[in-house]
Amino acid sequence: MSLKPSIPKGTKDYLPDNLHKRNYLKKILRETFEIFGFLPIETPSFERNETLIGKYGEHGDRLIFKILNSGDKLKKADIKSLEKEDVIRFSNSLSEKALRYDLTVPLARFVSQHRNEISFPFRRYQMQNVWRADRPQKGRFQEFLQCDVDIVGSKSILQEVEIILMCENIFSRLNLKNISVNLNHRKILEGVAIFIGVKDKFLKLTSSLDKLDKIGMDGVINELENQEFSKRSIDLLIPFLDNKGSFKSKIDFLSRKLKDIEVAKEGLDDLFSIYSKINKFKLNCISVNLDINLARGLDYYTGLILEVVPDKGEFDFGSIAGGGRYDNLTDFFGLKDTSGFGISFGFDRINLMLEKLKLFPKDLSKSSKVMFVNFEDQITDQYLQEILKLRERGVACEIYPTKSKLKKQLDYANQRKIPFVIMIGSDELSKKEFVIKNMETGTQSVHKSINLIDEIMKLI
Amino acid sequence: MSLKPSIPKGTKDYLPDNLHKRNYLKKILRETFEIFGFLPIETPSFERNETLIGKYGEHGDRLIFKILNSGDKLKKADIKSLEKEDVIRFSNSLSEKALRYDLTVPLARFVSQHRNEISFPFRRYQMQNVWRADRPQKGRFQEFLQCDVDIVGSKSILQEVEIILMCENIFSRLNLKNISVNLNHRKILEGVAIFIGVKDKFLKLTSSLDKLDKIGMDGVINELENQEFSKRSIDLLIPFLDNKGSFKSKIDFLSRKLKDIEVAKEGLDDLFSIYSKINKFKLNCISVNLDINLARGLDYYTGLILEVVPDKGEFDFGSIAGGGRYDNLTDFFGLKDTSGFGISFGFDRINLMLEKLKLFPKDLSKSSKVMFVNFEDQITDQYLQEILKLRERGVACEIYPTKSKLKKQLDYANQRKIPFVIMIGSDELSKKEFVIKNMETGTQSVHKSINLIDEIMKLI
Repeated sequence: MSLKPSIPKGTKDYLPDNLHKRNYLKKILRETFEIFGFLPIETPSFERNETLIGKYGEHGDRLIFKILNSGDKLKKADIKSLEKEDVIRFSNSLSEKALRYDLTVPLARFVSQHRNEISFPFRRYQMQNVWRADRPQKGRFQEFLQCDVDIVGSKSILQEVEIILMCENIFSRLNLKNISVNLNHRKILEGVAIFIGVKDKFLKLTSSLDKLDKIGMDGVINELENQEFSKRSIDLLIPFLDNKGSFKSKIDFLSRKLKDIEVAKEGLDDLFSIYSKINKFKLNCISVNLDINLARGLDYYTGLILEVVPDKGEFDFGSIAGGGRYDNLTDFFGLKDTSGFGISFGFDRINLMLEKLKLFPKDLSKSSKVMFVNFEDQITDQYLQEILKLRERGVACEIYPTKSKLKKQLDYANQRKIPFVIMIGSDELSKKEFVIKNMETGTQSVHKSINLIDEIMKLI
Repeated sequence: MSLKPSIPKGTKDYLPDNLHKRNYLKKILRETFEIFGFLPIETPSFERNETLIGKYGEHGDRLIFKILNSGDKLKKADIKSLEKEDVIRFSNSLSEKALRYDLTVPLARFVSQHRNEISFPFRRYQMQNVWRADRPQKGRFQEFLQCDVDIVGSKSILQEVEIILMCENIFSRLNLKNISVNLNHRKILEGVAIFIGVKDKFLKLTSSLDKLDKIGMDGVINELENQEFSKRSIDLLIPFLDNKGSFKSKIDFLSRKLKDIEVAKEGLDDLFSIYSKINKFKLNCISVNLDINLARGLDYYTGLILEVVPDKGEFDFGSIAGGGRYDNLTDFFGLKDTSGFGISFGFDRINLMLEKLKLFPKDLSKSSKVMFVNFEDQITDQYLQEILKLRERGVACEIYPTKSKLKKQLDYANQRKIPFVIMIGSDELSKKEFVIKNMETGTQSVHKSINLIDEIMKLI
């Protein structure tokens, strides 16, 4: 009995055509990150459980893939907790390490561990896979590539400005236009909470605000009523829910409304300062907006919050990048006061956009440009020398490995999208000639053998 | 209490300087693979347990990292087998998938699964991490990069020839010389086993032969005696253990000795044919040898066996690449008769050689080429425009994020190995000038602001 070949749910094989595109996008991101002064790091696929667990909330913790201990260590399995149906404790007794869930916690661990080997502010990028035991669904995988860029160890809002400008640069290189970079600030949200008198319900408030796009104003109000927000609070909130107008007009509105709230002023100062700096640049691909209801990552972000979204209509997904300012990245590891700003790009979604909008350059394929047909062993041996010369000149080429029927060999070239095929049979050999077949047009041309390399170089 | 930041034993963080070198080696390998007509694929980090387990022998199976099931699935833990100390069965009840142990089994699964989407002979390369629960030791990690190149679906020995020529090309591009490519053939080893009358003890014989380098001729004889090989068998074997002489002279010796053994002749024909084809090329970096005692991977390889080793003395490790011909790659998945030939490059060892021999090109660092000192917010805002222009021209540059002391800013540039620093204070601003400081020589030069971009472009 043979096994039906298959992969675990939620995972994906990448075939060459697909990989060429992914590698193109990776290359653009990598190059842009480096031009903006960011350096690459890589961390191990698995981290100690102590490093990961407890960092992503209860829900997140459940989505961490743990590595099963092996050998005698397994004998320490805590059977009693299994009997008590305490699955978490049972699984903790079976495992010491886990696959990374994101690149942020590994960054925090890395910065703390290597604090004496790196220079601050530490500008790093990292492009590695992460794993999440999410329920597999269309377009969502359990293993996916994350692309994170962070500057750690500086409070300057120049960081925010630089990363927003980097977005413009990336999307410009990818020919992606009409991208919104939406900003908000934790301290403005805190100001609003104080203003409407729900300072102690900050996370409840922001969690509802974050859903405004999905559930609408009525939905938000409904949710807040259910969470026992007073009518007065909700009435005070309503003007903030209307998120229209220019960046400047929203700043003005917020400054008026929240003028007596110190924390809000700090947030508004940051935002205005970022806005003024960015405003001096001509932006072709991104527009920078203030989104009063943007409220993501508030268990973590302490300053600016940022979200990058393509214009509605074309794509049925939300953001293609997100980030923010954090002040306590490395506290957990005993390294205090490392403020930083970071952004994470949604590689698969950007990839999908390029695919849908047909923005991948043509001829990304790295397939051989030339294939030599295999007629006779003796001739083949002579080819090999020429093929090697072509390769030395950087021409990707190959020889069909066996003396199969011509049709079979040409079919192979077709399937592999090899544009030119070289044919030398005994007839051509005796005449010291060779034939080039253009696989796209089907035309053939005869040339002198002595010019083989030159003629082929002309084609490429 | 804070947690001491650390990573699991047997894993490794990569810092930028290290990664630049690794990325260089990856690039050379990738480019050469593609020039030889190989296309990239990628497979998921984990495979179903059924796919992996049982493929690597009992020892290998124990080294597979299994992923712990999560949630309610854990309740299916087979406690009884734990009570019986049957750790294997217990762990199988806790896990459905595992991290890949190599790239060969995933290739077999991939080829079987996608047989209708790919064209045969399928020339693929794959550069991805694999994981092995080996005892961590110096230079050996539980997670490491494998670089595999295979041609699947053709019996032609042109494949062997092409891959040997590819080795020459790779090592030539890396400036690595004095590399031995040692060949042997399963059918010759089978012939020897028949010749000395131990056909039924083939794996015992070859397992001892494989140790010749380590334990010497006496060691091998001793081991065979312990395995109850007869004196006559051992006496017949001894002439084969003397592995000196040229490729051709060894072929002649073997042809004479094994002339009556059909299977040996097939092997010798293959080897001679490969030798004749390779012999026509001028090889600068590799030498191709026949090693009668090379006997690796015989649970798997059915034809040519290949091993690439640097010349002794300089390096304390064995092979830097290994490969062979296999006939039954995809049998397990019900796809019969897919012969192939493949090679796997030892990335970390090659990396180590380049490091030791100082063969990495200078200036692999992707650090910023230019840093702007941060004196005053107002001036900084003006810089930003210039920095963006430089980046558009592909110059990696950055601005120090805060108005720190000049010394601190210059120290940062030094640590980051940024070669040029631009300084514009209020003084320079009023004179419409700027200063370039060469961080290596310490010299400074004053220029007109209007030429900022041009002057900087001259430096790069």
